[in-house]
Amino acid sequence: MAEVNVKILNSIINDGDRILIDKIDDSYLSDALGRIKGHADVVLFPVNVDEVSKIMRYAWENQIPVTPRGAGTNLVGSTVPVEGGIVLDLTRMNQIIEFDEETMTATVEAGVVLADFQEYVEAKGCFYPPDPGEKTATIGGNISTNAGGMRAVKYGVTRDYVRGLEVVLANGEILWVGSKNVKDASGLSLKNLIVGSEGTLAIITKCILKIIPKPEVTLSVLLPYRDVKTAIPGVLTIIKENANPTAIEFIERDVIKLGEDYTGLSFPYPKAGAYILMTFDGRSLELEGNVERVKKSAIKQGALDVLILDSEELLMNVWKIRGCFVKAVEAVSEQEPVDLVVPVNKIVEFISYVSEYEKKSGMRMIRFGHAGDGNIHLCMVRGNRSDDKWEKELQEHLNAIYQKAFLLGGLTSGEHGIGLSKRIFYLKETAPQNLELMRQMKRAFDEREILNRHKTYLA
Amino acid sequence: MAEVNVKILNSIINDGDRILIDKIDDSYLSDALGRIKGHADVVLFPVNVDEVSKIMRYAWENQIPVTPRGAGTNLVGSTVPVEGGIVLDLTRMNQIIEFDEETMTATVEAGVVLADFQEYVEAKGCFYPPDPGEKTATIGGNISTNAGGMRAVKYGVTRDYVRGLEVVLANGEILWVGSKNVKDASGLSLKNLIVGSEGTLAIITKCILKIIPKPEVTLSVLLPYRDVKTAIPGVLTIIKENANPTAIEFIERDVIKLGEDYTGLSFPYPKAGAYILMTFDGRSLELEGNVERVKKSAIKQGALDVLILDSEELLMNVWKIRGCFVKAVEAVSEQEPVDLVVPVNKIVEFISYVSEYEKKSGMRMIRFGHAGDGNIHLCMVRGNRSDDKWEKELQEHLNAIYQKAFLLGGLTSGEHGIGLSKRIFYLKETAPQNLELMRQMKRAFDEREILNRHKTYLA
Repeated sequence: MAEVNVKILNSIINDGDRILIDKIDDSYLSDALGRIKGHADVVLFPVNVDEVSKIMRYAWENQIPVTPRGAGTNLVGSTVPVEGGIVLDLTRMNQIIEFDEETMTATVEAGVVLADFQEYVEAKGCFYPPDPGEKTATIGGNISTNAGGMRAVKYGVTRDYVRGLEVVLANGEILWVGSKNVKDASGLSLKNLIVGSEGTLAIITKCILKIIPKPEVTLSVLLPYRDVKTAIPGVLTIIKENANPTAIEFIERDVIKLGEDYTGLSFPYPKAGAYILMTFDGRSLELEGNVERVKKSAIKQGALDVLILDSEELLMNVWKIRGCFVKAVEAVSEQEPVDLVVPVNKIVEFISYVSEYEKKSGMRMIRFGHAGDGNIHLCMVRGNRSDDKWEKELQEHLNAIYQKAFLLGGLTSGEHGIGLSKRIFYLKETAPQNLELMRQMKRAFDEREILNRHKTYLA
Repeated sequence: MAEVNVKILNSIINDGDRILIDKIDDSYLSDALGRIKGHADVVLFPVNVDEVSKIMRYAWENQIPVTPRGAGTNLVGSTVPVEGGIVLDLTRMNQIIEFDEETMTATVEAGVVLADFQEYVEAKGCFYPPDPGEKTATIGGNISTNAGGMRAVKYGVTRDYVRGLEVVLANGEILWVGSKNVKDASGLSLKNLIVGSEGTLAIITKCILKIIPKPEVTLSVLLPYRDVKTAIPGVLTIIKENANPTAIEFIERDVIKLGEDYTGLSFPYPKAGAYILMTFDGRSLELEGNVERVKKSAIKQGALDVLILDSEELLMNVWKIRGCFVKAVEAVSEQEPVDLVVPVNKIVEFISYVSEYEKKSGMRMIRFGHAGDGNIHLCMVRGNRSDDKWEKELQEHLNAIYQKAFLLGGLTSGEHGIGLSKRIFYLKETAPQNLELMRQMKRAFDEREILNRHKTYLA
């Protein structure tokens, strides 16, 4: 790989504020966890697609590695520049270009922050359903990992809201995949291949996103259970009964305690061993009907109670505690986040396995997640382990846990992506022929292999 | 390309009833229209994936073209064997392998007929939403073209219901893409690349399909308008008002007349120039609310009336007439079906263009389609034109019409696919870089280019 010629880059980005060469902050060399650090020759902040195109043409001609990034909120090392070269930061391409109420689409630059976009759309009486926990991520980053979030049960994931993308290929060519059209049976879906490709195939610069009318009301319901083994099957029955919940979260009591300690707030029904937290949205009449059905069904399925979170305070307490888990864990110890997914009917078996394994291994494994789609978050807690011990034990335990998930038909990641840190497990899970096909896709898009090297499915 | 060795194929499929060599019926050499006819050395009817794999290995090693087909209901020549070789008919792989109520998925062989599958699932209290007009198509065929249908407004298209696929590659390798998991942020989505690839990348042999709970009730509402220019904007407003319709069809009066003549039935409100036919499904309480809102809004938006189709007879008449258009046209003349799509806010401009163009050209162009997603069906009517005149005029008029659609940001096909007969227009619409990327995908999957040669994006 060649060295970076700053003079040429200066001629492309004619603004000293948008080129970092010397004092490159560590935050540009890592992800949100900051544990894996790469190195870079230069960080560039393009403001339009032509700059991105010229940068890529230069990188392509000189075979310089390029690591694209949005806000860098990922947890799997996707934005770590492994082999130096250029870090391409897209956060200054953050314009909302068009809000098209007729086609119910919005066209935005890739660097628009999710929270800003959601706010913008909701102010117009509309709604962008994908809702991953991290709202400071960019839309481009969300698309790169096919971000999920809690509302996926009812509304699907980011992929389902991407109508079209403007992308810059590794060689600098600019092209559009997808469009404002709703239906498309015209040729191969390059768009769907790029969604979730974690910056390995192309740089996303613009996004046409589907938006929907804003639901009239939302409502949260908390179901306490004796334990998670009773809770999950109960929930699967509720799904089948067509109550159409927006989100279905499961939480075990010991995680709640962490959250209570962290926030100083208290969670209702402390005697329960596990909770299902559901939300509903839509018209109030529909909601009433759905909640009524859930009430009846839940009690029959073993719920200890049905708590409608209709007081402002109760609602806030519950969601503040639910929202703080990762931070609550990190306040007491370093942690490694796991974001695997299993078929919904395997959640109980998987959670039971982890629970047993936790006891056996002595490593605390905080569990919570999305019961409606089998997406399970674990925090592997370091405690006071030394560097060596932590590294060794963590790998051993992660191995065991992913292996169990794969045996149950699961996948490495439901929403965080693979990046660098989940690669070793993903490569084990995935059939060699599938990997080989993916690598051939890579060669078709980026023959010189300059984009986000060594990430996810790449060697 | 080599000649087919029947002896070897006989050793793979050891059943004379499942190999056709001599008297190959024309139906295996064409599509549902039967206008374009290819030729084949042999038609094979495998009954399991191992046979498919062995056939493909043989074809790969000997570089023999293979044209896969389901029920052959396509309208664009997708199943025409252009260069001889093997026609691979998957209709005998028609087992429903698993109905998994826990994960709300069904696993079926690719040759299962859509109508059979819908019936099976509904008998179990569940629902498979994709509902293209042609119910005798196979599930594998539906996936190959990413079939749409009327319910797409609310439920999306076939792509949205494909969780996983077992496929056989051109070289005979068997692999799975996707899984029963709901969320997936693990590597490139090969599954989404194969959906809609019209048999050019791999042979689909098994499909894991998402199913949902069955809606409690369905209801149809007919809105008569003065003309289509008033009707469409009215409907877009209704969509924005969150009434959540399942289907939104538009029909012009002169098409209704054809349908009435064909069926002998009569359509309500004959004085209208155009109609919007909506369906709703869900719980009865929700439906009532939605329909109430539509009533109010529609009258405000220029509807002449709001007819709730609550009598069995009225409902049947309306849907029988709506369902017979293509057959009604074909009863009076040969026709060329067009299935293009434009952004929903361009429907009026497009329809007006076609209406003007019809007068100017003297070729009748029957119009109807899905107002909710911009998918417009045209029947170009031959009338008593001679072969030469028909061929010449048809190409000229199709050119003009597709060009207008592309100018409006539209696409060649919303649900039928590209196949052979829409290729010339698709290649015009699509940027050379996109085509080149697709062809590189093809080379990655099928380097020897034996699968469904010359179709859709291929040269």
